[in-house]
Amino acid sequence: MAERSDRSLSEDESRMNPESEAKVKKGGSGSQSWSWEDENNGLLVERIFEGQGVPSWRRQLTFRAFAVSFALNVMFAFIVMKLNLMTGIIPSLNVSAGLLGFFFVKTWTKVLEKSGLLRVPFTRQENTVIQTCVVASSGIAFSGGFGSYLFAMNERVANQSTDTQSAHVYKNPSLLWMIGFLFVVSFLGLFAVVPLRKIMIIDFKLTYPSGTATAHLINSFHTPEGAKLAKKQVKALGKFFSFSFLWGFFQWFYRAGDDCGFTNFPTLGLKAFQNRFYFDFSTTYVGVGMICPYIINISVLLGGILSWGIMWPLIETRKGHWYPAEESPNSMRGLQGYKVFIAIATILGDGLYNFFKVLSRTLSDLYHQLRDREMTHVLPFTNGSSLDNSQVSYDDQRRTQLFLKDQIPTWFAVAGYVTIAAISTATLPHIFPQLKWYYILVIYLSAPTLGFCNAYGCGLTDWSLPSTYGKLTIFMIGAWAGPSHGGILAGLAACGVMMNIVSTASDLTQDFKTGYLTLASPRSMFVSQVIGTAMGCVISPCVFWLFYKAFKDVGLPGSEYPVPNGIVYRSMAELGVEGSSSLPEHCLTLCYCFFAAAMIINGFRDLLGKKWARFIPLPMAMAIPFYIGPYFAIDMCVGSLILFIWEKTDKAKADAFGPAVASGLICGDGIWTMASSILALARVNPPICMKFLSRATNKRVNAFLGS
Amino acid sequence: MAERSDRSLSEDESRMNPESEAKVKKGGSGSQSWSWEDENNGLLVERIFEGQGVPSWRRQLTFRAFAVSFALNVMFAFIVMKLNLMTGIIPSLNVSAGLLGFFFVKTWTKVLEKSGLLRVPFTRQENTVIQTCVVASSGIAFSGGFGSYLFAMNERVANQSTDTQSAHVYKNPSLLWMIGFLFVVSFLGLFAVVPLRKIMIIDFKLTYPSGTATAHLINSFHTPEGAKLAKKQVKALGKFFSFSFLWGFFQWFYRAGDDCGFTNFPTLGLKAFQNRFYFDFSTTYVGVGMICPYIINISVLLGGILSWGIMWPLIETRKGHWYPAEESPNSMRGLQGYKVFIAIATILGDGLYNFFKVLSRTLSDLYHQLRDREMTHVLPFTNGSSLDNSQVSYDDQRRTQLFLKDQIPTWFAVAGYVTIAAISTATLPHIFPQLKWYYILVIYLSAPTLGFCNAYGCGLTDWSLPSTYGKLTIFMIGAWAGPSHGGILAGLAACGVMMNIVSTASDLTQDFKTGYLTLASPRSMFVSQVIGTAMGCVISPCVFWLFYKAFKDVGLPGSEYPVPNGIVYRSMAELGVEGSSSLPEHCLTLCYCFFAAAMIINGFRDLLGKKWARFIPLPMAMAIPFYIGPYFAIDMCVGSLILFIWEKTDKAKADAFGPAVASGLICGDGIWTMASSILALARVNPPICMKFLSRATNKRVNAFLGS
Repeated sequence: MAERSDRSLSEDESRMNPESEAKVKKGGSGSQSWSWEDENNGLLVERIFEGQGVPSWRRQLTFRAFAVSFALNVMFAFIVMKLNLMTGIIPSLNVSAGLLGFFFVKTWTKVLEKSGLLRVPFTRQENTVIQTCVVASSGIAFSGGFGSYLFAMNERVANQSTDTQSAHVYKNPSLLWMIGFLFVVSFLGLFAVVPLRKIMIIDFKLTYPSGTATAHLINSFHTPEGAKLAKKQVKALGKFFSFSFLWGFFQWFYRAGDDCGFTNFPTLGLKAFQNRFYFDFSTTYVGVGMICPYIINISVLLGGILSWGIMWPLIETRKGHWYPAEESPNSMRGLQGYKVFIAIATILGDGLYNFFKVLSRTLSDLYHQLRDREMTHVLPFTNGSSLDNSQVSYDDQRRTQLFLKDQIPTWFAVAGYVTIAAISTATLPHIFPQLKWYYILVIYLSAPTLGFCNAYGCGLTDWSLPSTYGKLTIFMIGAWAGPSHGGILAGLAACGVMMNIVSTASDLTQDFKTGYLTLASPRSMFVSQVIGTAMGCVISPCVFWLFYKAFKDVGLPGSEYPVPNGIVYRSMAELGVEGSSSLPEHCLTLCYCFFAAAMIINGFRDLLGKKWARFIPLPMAMAIPFYIGPYFAIDMCVGSLILFIWEKTDKAKADAFGPAVASGLICGDGIWTMASSILALARVNPPICMKFLSRATNKRVNAFLGS
Repeated sequence: MAERSDRSLSEDESRMNPESEAKVKKGGSGSQSWSWEDENNGLLVERIFEGQGVPSWRRQLTFRAFAVSFALNVMFAFIVMKLNLMTGIIPSLNVSAGLLGFFFVKTWTKVLEKSGLLRVPFTRQENTVIQTCVVASSGIAFSGGFGSYLFAMNERVANQSTDTQSAHVYKNPSLLWMIGFLFVVSFLGLFAVVPLRKIMIIDFKLTYPSGTATAHLINSFHTPEGAKLAKKQVKALGKFFSFSFLWGFFQWFYRAGDDCGFTNFPTLGLKAFQNRFYFDFSTTYVGVGMICPYIINISVLLGGILSWGIMWPLIETRKGHWYPAEESPNSMRGLQGYKVFIAIATILGDGLYNFFKVLSRTLSDLYHQLRDREMTHVLPFTNGSSLDNSQVSYDDQRRTQLFLKDQIPTWFAVAGYVTIAAISTATLPHIFPQLKWYYILVIYLSAPTLGFCNAYGCGLTDWSLPSTYGKLTIFMIGAWAGPSHGGILAGLAACGVMMNIVSTASDLTQDFKTGYLTLASPRSMFVSQVIGTAMGCVISPCVFWLFYKAFKDVGLPGSEYPVPNGIVYRSMAELGVEGSSSLPEHCLTLCYCFFAAAMIINGFRDLLGKKWARFIPLPMAMAIPFYIGPYFAIDMCVGSLILFIWEKTDKAKADAFGPAVASGLICGDGIWTMASSILALARVNPPICMKFLSRATNKRVNAFLGS
C-alpha cells in the first residue's frame, strides 16, 4: 500500500505532454553526437504537403480555433480538477486536445461548407494552434497546484498535520488571490521558453516523443488526397491507434484496485517488481521507445539498473543507520529523500552543463556578430551544431525555414520576462507576506536554468518533472525562511512559482516541436499560448472554486475529494523548514558526487567527438528513473527492440512506418486516458482485479476466501 | 474450488494426441460437405520429398526405432504415472514423442555415420513409427486407469467412501492381474481401429489437428536440402514453435495455484468466466482452430453457447426441483449429470448415424463386389465420397496411394478382434468375478461403435473423451449388475474395458493420420502399435507397482499421491448401481431429444447436398463443449479468425504458411507441457499467482492482507 501511494506520487510527477513529429527518427541533441539522418528520401512529409500553402501567422489564429479551445479548456479543466482532488493523478490530455480540436473544427467547417459560408479552410497549423492553446490552459489546472501546493496551505490540511506547532500557519483559498497569483506567475514560463525553443528544436533536435506523435497525428488528419504512401502511413497510424486504444480499454477491466491490473504485472518476477523492474504493458512508452534514439533508451535502462538495481537496495541495507528505520517509505527523511535529491542533482548537473555551454556559445556568437555588425535573421547558434552537416533533408530544411521565418525577437522575450518578473516580485509578497521579495528574485534568476533542464530532459525522454523541481524549491526556500517566519507557506508558494515556470517550459517547448513539424508559425503559437494561459488563469481557479464551494468536505480524509497530495506537500514543507539537517545522512554528499559526475560525463561526451560519444549514456536520461523507477525504461527498451528487429528485417518499411506506428501507439493510449478519466468521473469502476500474489500469500488468501 | 476439481476432471477427459499433417487445409469429412481443396500447387509437400524413396514397410521397422521407443516409453510412463497419482491431470506427450524420437535417432545415426557404420538412413517413416509406438504405450499409462477406475477398486478408496455399506467391495492391485487385465483388453482397440482408419482418413478426410501438427513437425525435420519454400515453412514452424513454447513458459510463472494464471483469465468478464466463456490463451487451441475447418469452429462455439450459455443456466434455475440443491457440483445427481449424459447422447446420435451410414454403404459395396467377383485392392468405400471429385492434389494422390498399398486385410482385423474378444470374455470373469461374461460380450459388441464415435469426434475437434464413455459404461453395467452383485467392481472393470478400446481407437487413428501424411506404411504402423501396446501393458503396471510399493500412502487424502480421481470414479460407480433412478429429473428425456436431434441434423446435412450442408453445424462438434465448457471453442474461433483475416489480406501466404504456423503453435505448447510436467515432478513450483477477483472480493482480500 505504501508502495502504491508512493507510485501515485510518482505519477503526479510524470505528466507527459504528447505532441508531435512525423519523419524524424533516431534524433539526438546537436551537441550530443548521434546524427539525425533522414534516409527516407521518398517519404518526405513536406513534399506531400507542398501543394498546400502555409497561411500567414495571423491567419493561423482564427476565431473558431479559440472558440473550440475555450470549450475544450473548460471541459478539460473539470476533468483534471476532479481527478486532481480525488486521486492526485492527472492524465495527460494533450493528444486528446489535438484530436478533439480536429473533430470540432472539422465539423464546424463541414457545416459551414455545406451552407456555403466557409471562407477559410481548416489547416494543420490551425489545428496546432488549438492544441497549443488547450495545452497551455490545461497545464495551469495542474501547475496551479489546486491538488498540491496551493491546497497544502489550506486550514483543513494544516489541521490534519502531525506537526501541531505549525497548525496556525495556513492560508485558505479565495477566488481573487488565486487568479491574481496565477496571472503574475504563469506568463513567466512562456517568455522563458521563447529563446529556448530554437536551441531545443533546431540545434539540439530533441525528440519530444509525445510531441512528435501529436504532430504526426495532426499531419495525418490533414494529409491531402492522392498521397499514396502517406495514406498508407495514416492507415498504419490508425491501426495502431485503435490497437492501443482497445488495449487500454481491455486493461481497464482488470484494474479494480490500485495494485491490480496489467500496470502491476510482475513480468520479471515479484522480487524485480518490488524494485520496479517490470514491463507494464504501456503502449505509450513502447511508442516513446520507438521514437527515442537507442542511446536514450539504453541510458534510461542503465540509470534504472544503477539506481533501483544497485544503489537503493544498498542504501536500504543502511536503514536504521543512515536514516531512521521507522520512517514511512514516502518520507523525505528516508529512502525517498535520496531518490528525489540525487535525481535532481544529476539532472541539474547535466542541465547546467548544457545551459552554460549554450550560453557561452551564444555570448561568443553575439560578440562576433556585434564586432562584424552583420545583421542576419538566422539564430546566433544555428551554425553551431548539427545543422552544418550537409545531408539536411527537405523536410528539415522547410521546417527550419518556416520555424525561423516569423521571429520573436530575443529582446522581446527578455523584456517580457523582466517586466513580468518585476511585477510579480512586487505583487507576490502582498499575497503571501511570508514570501519575501528577495526569495522571489532568487527564484526568477534560477528559474530559466531549471526550466531549461526540464525542457531538455523532457525532449530526451518524454518525462517532465515539475513537481520534483517544486519539491527542491520547497526545501531551499523553506530552509532559508525557517520555521519562525512561516517558512511553510513561503516554501509552498515558492514551489508554486517554480512549478509554473518549469512545467510551462517543457509543455510549451513540446508544443513548439509540434508546431515545427506541422509548419505552424512560432508567432501564432506564442499568441495561442498567451491566450491559452490567460484562459487557464481564469478557468482553473473558477472550476476549483466551484468544487470547493459545492462539496463542503473537499480535502478531508475519507471524503469524496480527499486531495491526497495536499498533506504530502504540507509534510514536505514542514520538513523543509528544518533545513538540510532533516535530510538523511550522506544524502548531500551523494548529491554532490552525482552532480559532478553528470558534468564530467558530459565533458567526456564533448571531448570524445561524435564517433565515440554516441556510446556514452546521457546523465539526464539516466537520472529520470532514479525517482520514478525503471519500469518505463523497460517499456521503452521493448519499443527500441521492436524497432531494431524491424529495421534488421525490413529497413525500408521500418523507416517508412516506424514513426507512424509509434505515434499510433502513443496517441491511442492518450485518448484512452481521457476516456478512462471520464469513466472515473462517472464513477464507473472496473469490475475485476487482476492481482499478483506470491505462492505463500495466495495460500493464505485462498484459506481466507474459503472460510 | 469446486469449479477447479471439476475442471481437473475435465482435463482428465481431454487427453489430446498431437500428431500430424502437412499440406491439407480446410478439410471435411467425405460425407460432410465442405471440400478439401488444395489450391497451393506450388507447395506440394510430396513433390519436395519425391527424391527420397519410401522404404518398404519392413524396413520402416528398425531395431533402433524400438530401442528408442522403449526408452521413451519408460520415461513417459514415469511422468504420466506420477502426475496421474498426484493430480489426476495427464499431459499430452505425443508431440514430445515425435520430437524426442527424432533427436535420439538423429544423434544415433550421426554417431554411426561418423564411425562409418550407418547402413540405413533415418527416414520420416521411421520417425513416425517411433512416435506411434510411444503413443500406443503411453496411452496405456492413462487408459490403464491407475489413477482412475483401477485405483477406485482399491481398499483404501473404498474406506474413504461415504457409502459405508459397500466398503467391503474392493479389489486391491497386484502386478500379475493388472498385467493380465491390460493384455486381454488393450489389443482390442487396435483391431477395431484397422478398418476405421480408411474411413476416417481417406473417406472422411478428418483433420485430427494435433495429428496433423505432429506430421508437419516430422516432415519439417526431414525436409531435404534445397527445397526453398519448404525451408521457409520449416522456419515459420520453428518460429511459432518457439513462441508457443516460450509463451507456455511465461504463463507457467503465474500459475502458483489452481485458480491462478492465464488459463483462468476472465477475458470476457467474471460472469462469463463462471460459465466457462473465456479466452484461455492456449496456443494449442488457437493452432487447432487454424487447422480445423470454419464450420467445426463455429459448431463448437454454437454448442458452447447452447449449453453453457442457455441450457445449463436454465437448468440451474430448477435447482431444488429437478435435482437436489445440496448436491455437490461434481455429483452426477446434479447439473453434472445433465452435462455428461446429454453430451454423450448427442455424440452417440451423430456417431451412430455416421457409423450406420458407413456400414450400410460398406455392405452394399461388398454385396456388389461379391456379385461382380472383381478383386481390387482398393477399399470398398474409397469410391464413395470426396475422392471422386477430380481436383485431387498430387499430395493427396501420393499419400492415398501409399496408404492403400500395404493393406491389412479386413478379415485379419475382424478375426483378430473376435479372437481377442473371445479370450478376453473367457479370462476377465476370472479376474473380476463380478463382471459376468455376458456384460463383456455386450461391451465388445458395442465398443467398435463407440470407438468409431470417439475417433470421429477427435478427428473433427481434436478432443478425445474416453473417460466420458467410461462413465457411461460405469452407469450402464453398474445399473445392470446392481448393488447386490458387487456392481461397483463390475462397473469399474467395464469402464476400464471400454476406456481402453475407445481411447485406443482415437489415439491410433490420429497416428494413422500422421502416418498418412508422412507416407508411413499402415502395416509398419500396425506392427509398431502392437509392439508399443505390448510394451505399455508391461511397463505401466510395473511403474505403478513401483510407486505403490515405494510410497505407502498412495491414495490416502493429504498424502503426496492422493490419486484424486480414484474417489471420483468410486462415487460414480456407487451411484451407477442405483440405476437410472439416480439420475436427475428429465435428464433421460433430454438425452433422447438430443440423440434424436443429432440424427435429424445429420440427415438434413445429407439431404441438402454439399452446397447447403456446409452451413449446418455438426452435432458431434457441438456436443464436445457441453461437458468441457466453451472456453476452448473461443480459442479455436480466435485461430479461425486469425486465419480468416490472413486469407483476406494475403491468400497465397496464408495457404503456404497457415498449417506451418498452426503446427508450430500446437507443437510448441505440447513440448512445454512435457517440460512443465518435469518441473512439477521435480517439485519446482511457480512463484506467482495471477489471481482474478471481483472488486468486492478484492476489497475484502486487501483488508485481510493489510491486517
